[in-house]
Amino acid sequence: MGLELYLDLFSPPCRAVYIFAKKNNIPFDFKAVELFKDSILGTKGPDTKSPEGATQAGPGTKITLTKKVPVLKDEAFSLADSTAILLYLSRKYKTPDHWYPSDIQKRAKVDEYLSWHQGNIRVQAPQTVWIKVLIPLFTGQPFSSDKLQRVMGEMAVSLRQFEEQFLQDQPFLVGREISLADLVAVVELMQPVAAGCDIFEGRPRLTQWRKRVEEAIGKEVFLQAHELILNIHKLSTIQIDPRLKEQVAPTLLKMLQ
Amino acid sequence: MGLELYLDLFSPPCRAVYIFAKKNNIPFDFKAVELFKDSILGTKGPDTKSPEGATQAGPGTKITLTKKVPVLKDEAFSLADSTAILLYLSRKYKTPDHWYPSDIQKRAKVDEYLSWHQGNIRVQAPQTVWIKVLIPLFTGQPFSSDKLQRVMGEMAVSLRQFEEQFLQDQPFLVGREISLADLVAVVELMQPVAAGCDIFEGRPRLTQWRKRVEEAIGKEVFLQAHELILNIHKLSTIQIDPRLKEQVAPTLLKMLQ
Repeated sequence: MGLELYLDLFSPPCRAVYIFAKKNNIPFDFKAVELFKDSILGTKGPDTKSPEGATQAGPGTKITLTKKVPVLKDEAFSLADSTAILLYLSRKYKTPDHWYPSDIQKRAKVDEYLSWHQGNIRVQAPQTVWIKVLIPLFTGQPFSSDKLQRVMGEMAVSLRQFEEQFLQDQPFLVGREISLADLVAVVELMQPVAAGCDIFEGRPRLTQWRKRVEEAIGKEVFLQAHELILNIHKLSTIQIDPRLKEQVAPTLLKMLQ
Repeated sequence: MGLELYLDLFSPPCRAVYIFAKKNNIPFDFKAVELFKDSILGTKGPDTKSPEGATQAGPGTKITLTKKVPVLKDEAFSLADSTAILLYLSRKYKTPDHWYPSDIQKRAKVDEYLSWHQGNIRVQAPQTVWIKVLIPLFTGQPFSSDKLQRVMGEMAVSLRQFEEQFLQDQPFLVGREISLADLVAVVELMQPVAAGCDIFEGRPRLTQWRKRVEEAIGKEVFLQAHELILNIHKLSTIQIDPRLKEQVAPTLLKMLQ
C-alpha cells in the first residue's frame, strides 16, 4: 500500500493537493470521496431501518456537512489538513524549491499568506457556491441576493488586500515563481467563478496573475482538477430524496445567517 | 536596528511569540502595542479636533478592534502573522529541533495541529474574555450567560477533540517533547482561565498536559507572559471616555451575535 489521497474535487483544498501531486509526478492512489453523496445525500450515513425493512433516513440519521477531506494516508501515517498535506508532500518528495522556498524570508511570506488565506479567501469564496447553487438546490428556494451581495462585499475587501498587500507588482504571490501560496489561492478563487460570480472580471491584475498560475501549473492538470466544479450546474439535474432535503434545509439556511 | 517584535501580551498569539523568543534567548526589541489603549481607547487614533481645540473622538474617528499584532520587523523585512513569525524565528535562530521537529511525520503533525487550532481553539477561547470582561466593560451591561454557555459548549467539543485526537496518551501534542503546537495551544487556553472559566477543571488529562507545558517553558517566563491577562479584572477600574463607549458598544455586541 503506497500513498493514498482521499479527495473530493468539489473542495478547493482537495484540488490544491491533487494538482500538487499530479504536477510533481507524485504517485498516489486517488480515493474518491463524494461529499455530496456520502454526507449530504447520506448514502453512507448510519441509516435506520423502517419497520418494513426498507432503508430510510430516520430521525436518528446523522447528516454531516463537514466530512473532512483531504486526507492523506501513507502506510500507518495519516494527515487530515490540506496545508499539512502539501508541506508533507513537498518534504517527502523533495519537490522543486519554488513551491516552498528554502530562503527563509520567502518561506515566511508563503507561511504568512497561507495563514491569512485561511481566515479570509478560504472562508468567503466557497460561500458563493452555497448561496447560488447548493442552498437553492436543497431548499428549493431562489438564492438570496442580499447574502450574495454581503459575501461579494467581503470578498472585494479581501481581493483588494490580496492584490495590494500580497501580490503587489510581482508575477506571483511570493516573487518570480509559483509557490504553495498561489496554488491554494487559485483553487479557492475558482469557486465563485463556478457559481457564476466572476471575481476576475474588472480585476486585470488578478486576471493576469491567474493566467500565469494556470500556465505554471499546466492547463491540462488545471482543467482536470476543475472539471467537476465548473460543471456544478449539472447538480441541479440530480434527484434528491425529499426527506433528506427537509432534514438538510434548516442546517443550510443556518450556515449563512 | 535588530529584531523588533510588536506585541500586546493580552493577545495569545503575541504571548506565544514572546515566550518562544524569551525561552530561546533570541534578542529582540520589545515594542509594546496596547490594543485597548491604541485601538479601542483611540489614544493613537486619527482624532478630530473639536472647535475648542480639545482632542475628541469625532464622527470620523476610526476605531479598529482588529489592529494586527504580533508583527515582526527584521531590518527591512516584516511579517504579520504569529505562525509565520514562530516558524521564521525557529529557522533563523536554529532553535532546538523539538519545537518544529525535522522528522517529517512529526513536523506534519505540528502543521496539522496548527491549522486545526486556528479554526477551533483560536476562534472560541478568546470569546470568553469578550463575553465576560470586555463587553460588560464597554457596554455597561451584565455579561450574557446564554452566549457564554454557547461558547463553552463549542469549547467542550474542541477540547474533547484536543484530548482524544491530538493529545491522546502522549505527554505533549506531538510526542515526548514540547513543540510549537503545545505553545500556541496553552497561551490560548489561558484566555478562558483569565475570564474566570477554568476549562482545566474536571479535565485531568488537560491539566497534566498544561503542567508539563508550563514546566517545559519555565514557570518564570510563563508567568511573565501571562501577568497582564491574569489581572484582566483590573481593567474594570480604568476610566473610559463615555463617547467612545457609545461608539464601540454596537460593534462589540455585534461581534457575538
